[in-house]
Amino acid sequence: MRMRGRRAPPHPRQQEPMEADEFFTTPAMAAAFSPAARVARMLEFEAALARAEAGAGVIPAEAAAAIGAACRPELLDVAALYREAALAGTPAIPLVRMLTARVAEGARGYVHWGATSQDAIDTALALQLRAGLDLLITDLLAIADACAALAERHRRTLMAGRTLLQHALPITFGLKAARWLALATRQVAELRARRGQLAIQLGGAAGTLAALGDRGLDVADRLAAELGLAAPDLPWHAERDRVAAVAAALGVAAGALAKIAGDLALLAQSEVAEVAEAAAPGKGGSSALPQKRNPVDATAALAAARLALGVVPVILAAQAGEHERAVGGWQAEWAGLPDLFRYTAGAAAHVRGALDGLHVDPARMRANLDAGGGLIMAEALTMALAPALGRPAAQSLAGELCARALAAGGTLRAAALADDRVRAALGPAALDRALDPSAYLGSADALIDRALAGYRAIRDPIAQ
Amino acid sequence: MRMRGRRAPPHPRQQEPMEADEFFTTPAMAAAFSPAARVARMLEFEAALARAEAGAGVIPAEAAAAIGAACRPELLDVAALYREAALAGTPAIPLVRMLTARVAEGARGYVHWGATSQDAIDTALALQLRAGLDLLITDLLAIADACAALAERHRRTLMAGRTLLQHALPITFGLKAARWLALATRQVAELRARRGQLAIQLGGAAGTLAALGDRGLDVADRLAAELGLAAPDLPWHAERDRVAAVAAALGVAAGALAKIAGDLALLAQSEVAEVAEAAAPGKGGSSALPQKRNPVDATAALAAARLALGVVPVILAAQAGEHERAVGGWQAEWAGLPDLFRYTAGAAAHVRGALDGLHVDPARMRANLDAGGGLIMAEALTMALAPALGRPAAQSLAGELCARALAAGGTLRAAALADDRVRAALGPAALDRALDPSAYLGSADALIDRALAGYRAIRDPIAQ
Amino acid sequence: MRMRGRRAPPHPRQQEPMEADEFFTTPAMAAAFSPAARVARMLEFEAALARAEAGAGVIPAEAAAAIGAACRPELLDVAALYREAALAGTPAIPLVRMLTARVAEGARGYVHWGATSQDAIDTALALQLRAGLDLLITDLLAIADACAALAERHRRTLMAGRTLLQHALPITFGLKAARWLALATRQVAELRARRGQLAIQLGGAAGTLAALGDRGLDVADRLAAELGLAAPDLPWHAERDRVAAVAAALGVAAGALAKIAGDLALLAQSEVAEVAEAAAPGKGGSSALPQKRNPVDATAALAAARLALGVVPVILAAQAGEHERAVGGWQAEWAGLPDLFRYTAGAAAHVRGALDGLHVDPARMRANLDAGGGLIMAEALTMALAPALGRPAAQSLAGELCARALAAGGTLRAAALADDRVRAALGPAALDRALDPSAYLGSADALIDRALAGYRAIRDPIAQ
Amino acid sequence: MRMRGRRAPPHPRQQEPMEADEFFTTPAMAAAFSPAARVARMLEFEAALARAEAGAGVIPAEAAAAIGAACRPELLDVAALYREAALAGTPAIPLVRMLTARVAEGARGYVHWGATSQDAIDTALALQLRAGLDLLITDLLAIADACAALAERHRRTLMAGRTLLQHALPITFGLKAARWLALATRQVAELRARRGQLAIQLGGAAGTLAALGDRGLDVADRLAAELGLAAPDLPWHAERDRVAAVAAALGVAAGALAKIAGDLALLAQSEVAEVAEAAAPGKGGSSALPQKRNPVDATAALAAARLALGVVPVILAAQAGEHERAVGGWQAEWAGLPDLFRYTAGAAAHVRGALDGLHVDPARMRANLDAGGGLIMAEALTMALAPALGRPAAQSLAGELCARALAAGGTLRAAALADDRVRAALGPAALDRALDPSAYLGSADALIDRALAGYRAIRDPIAQ
Repeated sequence: MRMRGRRAPPHPRQQEPMEADEFFTTPAMAAAFSPAARVARMLEFEAALARAEAGAGVIPAEAAAAIGAACRPELLDVAALYREAALAGTPAIPLVRMLTARVAEGARGYVHWGATSQDAIDTALALQLRAGLDLLITDLLAIADACAALAERHRRTLMAGRTLLQHALPITFGLKAARWLALATRQVAELRARRGQLAIQLGGAAGTLAALGDRGLDVADRLAAELGLAAPDLPWHAERDRVAAVAAALGVAAGALAKIAGDLALLAQSEVAEVAEAAAPGKGGSSALPQKRNPVDATAALAAARLALGVVPVILAAQAGEHERAVGGWQAEWAGLPDLFRYTAGAAAHVRGALDGLHVDPARMRANLDAGGGLIMAEALTMALAPALGRPAAQSLAGELCARALAAGGTLRAAALADDRVRAALGPAALDRALDPSAYLGSADALIDRALAGYRAIRDPIAQ
Repeated sequence: MRMRGRRAPPHPRQQEPMEADEFFTTPAMAAAFSPAARVARMLEFEAALARAEAGAGVIPAEAAAAIGAACRPELLDVAALYREAALAGTPAIPLVRMLTARVAEGARGYVHWGATSQDAIDTALALQLRAGLDLLITDLLAIADACAALAERHRRTLMAGRTLLQHALPITFGLKAARWLALATRQVAELRARRGQLAIQLGGAAGTLAALGDRGLDVADRLAAELGLAAPDLPWHAERDRVAAVAAALGVAAGALAKIAGDLALLAQSEVAEVAEAAAPGKGGSSALPQKRNPVDATAALAAARLALGVVPVILAAQAGEHERAVGGWQAEWAGLPDLFRYTAGAAAHVRGALDGLHVDPARMRANLDAGGGLIMAEALTMALAPALGRPAAQSLAGELCARALAAGGTLRAAALADDRVRAALGPAALDRALDPSAYLGSADALIDRALAGYRAIRDPIAQ
Repeated sequence: MRMRGRRAPPHPRQQEPMEADEFFTTPAMAAAFSPAARVARMLEFEAALARAEAGAGVIPAEAAAAIGAACRPELLDVAALYREAALAGTPAIPLVRMLTARVAEGARGYVHWGATSQDAIDTALALQLRAGLDLLITDLLAIADACAALAERHRRTLMAGRTLLQHALPITFGLKAARWLALATRQVAELRARRGQLAIQLGGAAGTLAALGDRGLDVADRLAAELGLAAPDLPWHAERDRVAAVAAALGVAAGALAKIAGDLALLAQSEVAEVAEAAAPGKGGSSALPQKRNPVDATAALAAARLALGVVPVILAAQAGEHERAVGGWQAEWAGLPDLFRYTAGAAAHVRGALDGLHVDPARMRANLDAGGGLIMAEALTMALAPALGRPAAQSLAGELCARALAAGGTLRAAALADDRVRAALGPAALDRALDPSAYLGSADALIDRALAGYRAIRDPIAQ
Repeated sequence: MRMRGRRAPPHPRQQEPMEADEFFTTPAMAAAFSPAARVARMLEFEAALARAEAGAGVIPAEAAAAIGAACRPELLDVAALYREAALAGTPAIPLVRMLTARVAEGARGYVHWGATSQDAIDTALALQLRAGLDLLITDLLAIADACAALAERHRRTLMAGRTLLQHALPITFGLKAARWLALATRQVAELRARRGQLAIQLGGAAGTLAALGDRGLDVADRLAAELGLAAPDLPWHAERDRVAAVAAALGVAAGALAKIAGDLALLAQSEVAEVAEAAAPGKGGSSALPQKRNPVDATAALAAARLALGVVPVILAAQAGEHERAVGGWQAEWAGLPDLFRYTAGAAAHVRGALDGLHVDPARMRANLDAGGGLIMAEALTMALAPALGRPAAQSLAGELCARALAAGGTLRAAALADDRVRAALGPAALDRALDPSAYLGSADALIDRALAGYRAIRDPIAQ
């Protein structure tokens, strides 16, 4: 509608960077979902379709060759194509027109043979989704690499485990990193699984492949092979659960990335100060405060993840499209999926950036752990007292000692040493052992090993 | 907070049905996610944990037996438990207290041994998710049954294929039903896969299993076996991607259900009138209009699906929980997941209801197909003319004939018969064939077969 | 993070159009929320701040003049600024640095005096929101103009009123357009109200205006006057309800636009065919089907509205920012609000485009109204029979007649004429009157007048 | 659909509390949006409609009296009504049927005269929204009361201002509370404004008021007066922006509540420990850890707000309803709006609960402020040095001193005292003044006064 000559000035974006990109995506993902990339992928579709149809005997081999030769993105004026597309309501119509004009005359009639706009757009989408998933997987693997290194290095670095932001029990920073690692590992596996399901779309104008007569399924299988995509059981032009499942997987991944970024931002708080993002000239300063070092990557990752999650229900809801092609739902995917991939890529890149060179302060972790007067060891003390007192009495006694320590401003150890019942149940050495955080880590080590094993399995090229 | 005596009147819901339930869920799903069900599932956890710990030599076998004997939901006052839970901030604390009070004295100390509130709540959640997924799978299979029957029965029932709500090409109602069938089939497969991944949660207060010493992983494996759930690599108390992935799968399924319901509502429009929901006394009337027959099940399914989709980003975003237990995100799951399952169940039950006894009107489908003066056959005519004229000329001629037919208020056939170029290219029989919708269905039949084959594979108990 | 030299190639967007823009926004809105526009608005802030501070005696008047002279957007390299911003985590730091370098030496120390990055970014945002709201208001007024013309012109154009997509009662197309008109009118009023509330942000690094000593509020008042924005009671750096309320208003407006677009798409269906979007060369065709005329503007409006709605909860949730500046929430606004304005603008522009030259077919409206055999007049018949029979008996009789007409494939009129009870209650003329749709329009005319009066009130420049 | 005898067991909710309610809403709000409340409000509509119609001379006064006498909620079996409603697709049909049966015979024909189901449901909704808004306003005022008290009491309680979770500048806890106060105050104003716009819905079956002849608008005006609601310009059955605007306002309010709750949870962290929720027996403990005191109200408020925000886009999107009554969108409001009000009420009640008796620790606030070695005063030092050195040099020197202090593990004061340039610029007293947080609070006091003034204005009954 806007192209009807009412608005003269050239498009402002053409001269300028896009803010969202600069802060909340990566150049590579922006490129994978650019208009130029879409056009290039649509041309791949048209060339592969022609080859598939030639292979199936539907069109002459020479026509396929001529079409293939013309499918060169650099020959098309993408900006002009998009101007025309805005009026036509779809980029496929001007693309087919422009492509046809470049094909040798005898072969022109075979361009886009038997296909509809949506076949070109959706198959191009599948190719773009593949590229986008590959980029995300790469960044998630880099995150996993960083987490695996942290898990190994800080296997015995004690820190406070925190539930509802309150000290709960001692953990190790290695275990926390191992949990992030397992989280990233699972996302890699999920995204790889979705990548493997990506399929061509070929259905013709209403999903019957009518214009291909009885060769429709043969052409579809050949097209899939040409492009390295799956051949779907049925065309999926109007059943968008495949696309929705990819969007849902990105939503899960974006939330997972926000988990890591959120933990990092909390650990970097002034009062906690257990980690800090790597310093770099120009990074994380303040326009007013010379002393500040902001967690800019964690912050940007959290912002990007929020933006990504906003898109997910748009794509899920777009499934409810009308009949054989939707009025609005399908078209919302055209901008929504690029937004979703760009923002998720931003979240991944910024988590990667936050972990890259992360400064970890084991001494501060230990100091924070100890700052609570050892009350964090109350459960350990309960468990140590339980054999002698029974668990209910032990728990009640531990609670009493905590209250006493809090009231006196002293430590749990001091309160325990002063208590006859404790002394009767535990000797001094046993008490010290009970109050030693490094002796109350349960299966932390084994859990780290498990996370590392899972990571190695997805890192192993044979296992992929 | 609300229990501090400030608000005296008894809870109003206890005497009343819940609206959302009546319209937008099923009694079975409401039961699976009721407070009573949660309490029952938490008791299953406590009993199984005790058995697992006894098996691992952590607690005495007699204690496990005594705990198991006390884990009977009918012995607990669920309403009182929830009142206490609102103050404690978690239902696990009053449950453990109430359960402990019912256990024989010598075994009391072993109740909930080594576990934390979240272990009980999350493992109970996994059990509830399993029950919920089973209910959804059952309804999706019933939907698939109905669609499979429609696909077979209407394999050759011609209707208009519609893109952007405009007639595009002929399809069959059987093919449309086959596409719904494949859609439902894929949802069954996805939900079954998610069901298979459901895992116990056991981590202790901060995810180290510290209170279980070196027996933690053994207890976890035994607990998983007791409950028929997977044993996860690591505790997932603070990494909620498993839960998010289930929510995402429901979001995809809810959108898929809305696709079917939306098509039904559009087909039932007064001007289209190709299907109608089964009549039943009291169903679908109007308080003002005696002649109306409303698509009440499709409508309710669309409403329920919208409600379900609203919850998905809440669960996805809740992944970004703080450290070892979130402040707000995890707790939002407590109401969000029940909402999501209830609403998705409502969508499934209402789609099932809409398909159950669906009245299909093949004559009206044919009449609508023909009402456009045969212009829907323009592509078929193009393809028939292409060998003689080349595709560009054929397409241009077909467009011209359409315009002429529209201007004259006549049919495409009449316009074609009056055109010399057509007559030169096609004899009368060939023209009739080219304009026969039933001869321009491409691979519709084969696609129906594929959908049915996929359906049979998931219906076959051996394949499961 | 991405700027640390890891990714060499220049930003791809700089050479290319942005898809979302082409289909789902307007050039003017894209320009209002471009990086260049943000930089220009930040420079307006810096210049106005300097003038305000000079006025309040905080900095020398000459310094303000020198700063004002340097605040020329064309002097800054926006792309370089954004590259630096990505590393710094905020565009304000490089902007202040670049601006300072351009200011005469003696005045340099007074650039950005007493302000923080967020003051510049948020006040620039308020200026951008004002521009964005003005653009939306302009398009909504154009939509109102078109609806007002339709309401007048089709005041007596009968059509079927449809509830749950079933014929319910006769209405006029003028009334439907009047309802759209009132809807658009209300959105204009809401957006104007939000425009009037837009306020400067000035708080300094933590919202105390500390660096301005006791001149803080005076400077703030002067700054507001300089920029024509409101002076807020308190800085709103960390209380984002003002921004959220704007986003919420856009969400309401986007949904309202989707209402109009959805009705248009439904009315344009092949089987309904009561309206069609204006034809234009290259608009709305199909790559495969020569006969198609797609409702491309309604479709694009629906897509854009869906995309806009996805952003609203992101902005609402971003309110929950941490302490005096959020980690992630505030930053999500940077991309989210531009997305929201761009997509809402796309919805408005496309609704405007769909209404512009809309083809309305009163004959088809009448034909559709009559196609149901007059059953749509059942309520009118009930009301006509009620005085004689009582309403329950009248309603029951009307239902019976409907059923008979449906069974016989005849009209309600025929069924009524054949019924003794009807004949006893109504003479032939009274029956004809009861079955005349144009005599059963209730207050339609008066409601159209009301909508037009409301429209004129917001169109009247004095009332604004 | 579910009522067709396929599912025998009685509805489980009837015997049980609802989880969401217990944790995430209030009994009063649950009651306001219960099925019984809806039925009661629909009866109010029917009674008022009859009186309005009698007043307008449409029905006999005795009929109105008889109808009014029968409109007693306690006479109806709500559960049976809802069972029937699930089949009919609307609660209005069984309600009218049941009500009619209770009305004296001569008046029966006048029940629901000229109205449609949606008129009853939507006007009842308006009454429920009014009740719901009143409850929210009450809780927001209570929150404002608590914040006003904190703002006064802690006007001079120094604490660290934190941006991106890093210490930025000193603020006072009074100022933070004042910002919460202003936030709550604005929500009260917004919700009151929305309350004032609530309107009756009366349009008849398709929005023309046809069945009321020329008395439609008169009846509508009288109905509005009867119920104390606004008379809308046009019926709004299919233009839902009024409802969407209420939902949007709740979304803003829920986000605002999350802001306060989030700050409280962060302040309550073990390492920060500046506030704690009031202790109460059974509140906030842990099933495993005797020492824990969890911020359970803040946590529940955050959860409830997340749940509320999930509903907002559902209601916004539901605006795009089909023609004169939607298939799915309007019906989604039936459960969505109750969910939204319940969850928002939960957020408000829990924020109120968290503030009620909040323990504030000024000493800890001061200790945290000082723990950073005074680096938080770097900007103040810059401003103090600027007159002598110029701002750029001052800023650079302050940065240098911060770096030196950090490297030495000392204070900014020590680093400053050791620096010749500082000593040349500032005497010891001036340096002490520059480093005194209480002397660098800018307009904090005046801002607190403004927030209190705004609060008093909305608390003043005359201003309302």
